[in-house]
Amino acid sequence: MSSNFSFDVQHRDPETAARTSLLNTAHGTVHTPAFVGVATRATIKALEPQALVDIGLQIVISNTYHLHLQPGEDIIASLGGLHRFSGWNRPTMTDSGGFQVFSLGASKEHGVGKVASIFPGAKMSAKPKIRPSNPLVKLTELGVDFRSVIDGSLHTFTPESVITIERKLGADIILPLDECTSPLHDYAYTKRSMERTHRWAQRGLAAFQLLKDDPTFPNPDQVLYGIIQGGAYHDLRLESARVIGDMDFDGFAIGGSLGRSKSDMWNVLDWSIPLLRDEAPRHLLGIGEIEDLFTCVARGIDTFDCAAPTRLARNGSVFLKGAPRHRINLRNACFAADDGPIDPTCDCFTCRTHSRAYLRHLCRAGEFSFYRLATLHNLRFLVRLMGDIREAIESGTLTALAHEWEFTL
Amino acid sequence: MSSNFSFDVQHRDPETAARTSLLNTAHGTVHTPAFVGVATRATIKALEPQALVDIGLQIVISNTYHLHLQPGEDIIASLGGLHRFSGWNRPTMTDSGGFQVFSLGASKEHGVGKVASIFPGAKMSAKPKIRPSNPLVKLTELGVDFRSVIDGSLHTFTPESVITIERKLGADIILPLDECTSPLHDYAYTKRSMERTHRWAQRGLAAFQLLKDDPTFPNPDQVLYGIIQGGAYHDLRLESARVIGDMDFDGFAIGGSLGRSKSDMWNVLDWSIPLLRDEAPRHLLGIGEIEDLFTCVARGIDTFDCAAPTRLARNGSVFLKGAPRHRINLRNACFAADDGPIDPTCDCFTCRTHSRAYLRHLCRAGEFSFYRLATLHNLRFLVRLMGDIREAIESGTLTALAHEWEFTL
Repeated sequence: MSSNFSFDVQHRDPETAARTSLLNTAHGTVHTPAFVGVATRATIKALEPQALVDIGLQIVISNTYHLHLQPGEDIIASLGGLHRFSGWNRPTMTDSGGFQVFSLGASKEHGVGKVASIFPGAKMSAKPKIRPSNPLVKLTELGVDFRSVIDGSLHTFTPESVITIERKLGADIILPLDECTSPLHDYAYTKRSMERTHRWAQRGLAAFQLLKDDPTFPNPDQVLYGIIQGGAYHDLRLESARVIGDMDFDGFAIGGSLGRSKSDMWNVLDWSIPLLRDEAPRHLLGIGEIEDLFTCVARGIDTFDCAAPTRLARNGSVFLKGAPRHRINLRNACFAADDGPIDPTCDCFTCRTHSRAYLRHLCRAGEFSFYRLATLHNLRFLVRLMGDIREAIESGTLTALAHEWEFTL
Repeated sequence: MSSNFSFDVQHRDPETAARTSLLNTAHGTVHTPAFVGVATRATIKALEPQALVDIGLQIVISNTYHLHLQPGEDIIASLGGLHRFSGWNRPTMTDSGGFQVFSLGASKEHGVGKVASIFPGAKMSAKPKIRPSNPLVKLTELGVDFRSVIDGSLHTFTPESVITIERKLGADIILPLDECTSPLHDYAYTKRSMERTHRWAQRGLAAFQLLKDDPTFPNPDQVLYGIIQGGAYHDLRLESARVIGDMDFDGFAIGGSLGRSKSDMWNVLDWSIPLLRDEAPRHLLGIGEIEDLFTCVARGIDTFDCAAPTRLARNGSVFLKGAPRHRINLRNACFAADDGPIDPTCDCFTCRTHSRAYLRHLCRAGEFSFYRLATLHNLRFLVRLMGDIREAIESGTLTALAHEWEFTL
């Protein structure tokens, strides 16, 4: 573990597994539970990094797969690493590319996301959409061969090469190469895949330790989280939590398929988390609907990343407490002459400055300025909500806060 | 003329027709010569209105045609007019829709812009691209029938209806309906069109005066500019400047075809401007390359609007004094690892914060955040350049400043 990294639990909720902590990195402290902004290509879509500082976002996650393809880790390393490159000088994670392996492979083939039933239209595809003769992704024991979505060029990720790429990118928290299985993979496949992911984790960890003291990388204070797999299968999640939990990782991420429903996802957390060292941080990969922020924090999750809040924003769907699913869609005709802000209780630039009517106009006109204004609101909304959740944990009122939002923990 | 409107010439260049002035509107003073930002749909593309204040932009122009189609002038009026609607509380113009009549009609048919030879590939099309059986635009003495580009619905603009729409929008400076002819229209057509535009100008002015004291419109202090037409034909421009110049307009805009070259455009200005009242402001519609800002100011133009600087920005082309055509394209591979700002002498947020390498990455990735950062720079660059031009006029050094930029006045 880096000397500049520590994880200090501050408060525990008496009724649930929720906790607050200080996650200290070389680029600052994250107060958890925290939402991690998705800056796939070293920018949150439609927001310049300074805007994230202004809204109080604490940490972002970028993507090794995308940054490897463009602009390439060597360019980023030559410019001092991700922090200097992007101008975001605060805590940063990089995902390993495992999800991209999934989303270009099994996800396309199966037509599903990480929690099958949550995604409309998710079904087992009789005919895989990707022709076996020209797969975008090929997994072997060695690693993953894939074609670039940008230019079709062939690339290979191994557990070792991914660590090297991430060392060059220089995020504070990095993740090893894994295979993210689909909710529609069967037990046998999920088990074989998990076992391979465990071997990859061991190889990634070894590579990380080998490169740890190399002064040529931009961030000497990186830490590596292990990723728990095992799909929605009870014994596999237990096994993965034990195997990964026993390795010398600085924190843990819950990855892969989370089943076909929210309750499957909660089961996965309830099985895995108690087996992980209590003093290590726990990240939930790719999940972050408003309900999840409550129910997964209550199960012991410290950090989340999810592209949905920013994607929703770009589609006109903005958060408002008390609305159905706590959001409204500004495309709706009822906002055409609505002079009020999205949320009168919100302190974001968008709510302080612009009416729903103006935002609706920009949204329908497809103006780029809309994407920024809506994204600003949705992220500020989550920043404030996570602050409220932390306060509720500190004051022992998390269950009451969840009820106020109409969720059951 | 509105009691809150005045135009006060401050300084005159001893060598050219350039002048500085204070253009006072109900929403503030514009120091001219000035670049008018193009906020077609009540936003400059990719920039929220507050950013314009931050970079010192003084005035924007929105479009009657676009805002009529969406969200509609009644919604904007019900929300207090364009200023309140958009949150941009500073001087604002609205164009009349005449250019849209042109760009959906003759411009498409002829494959040209306002200055034919400036646009690559401009040529007389043997086969008009718009089938006569289904025209998007039909001009009559009454006005213009056109189909919405949004939903194909039929609309009619008359000189009178356009004034009503603009009164509802509430910009400080408004323009009457005209026909913007093409550089490829012949003398006879251009003359007929000009004469109709003159009749429309008279009708627009009458409608404006009739509605002047109606307290139901959001901005009681609007003024109306007349538009000079006549293509690149000497006698027509003289006639149009005399006819429009004699009407009771508060200022004048030079519109329509400006010929096939920069020197044609300069001729148009040299013919028209001396016939206009010296104490009235002069706007050049749709022109604003860097060279034009010098050469047209030297011919007596006070304000310009042009979409090119913001469109260039979105395509990766950013202004840098001394580069070929005073701009560089960030897509160029030579910027891949360039750690410097676009312009080390620029004080804009983008130059203070981000490297060419990062901006190039965002540009190639098609990230929305790029559009904003590049637009911010190009507009700030023009704001500073217009400030330098004003200072040079005040100090009698405009010709020297133009030479420094490698332009001849």
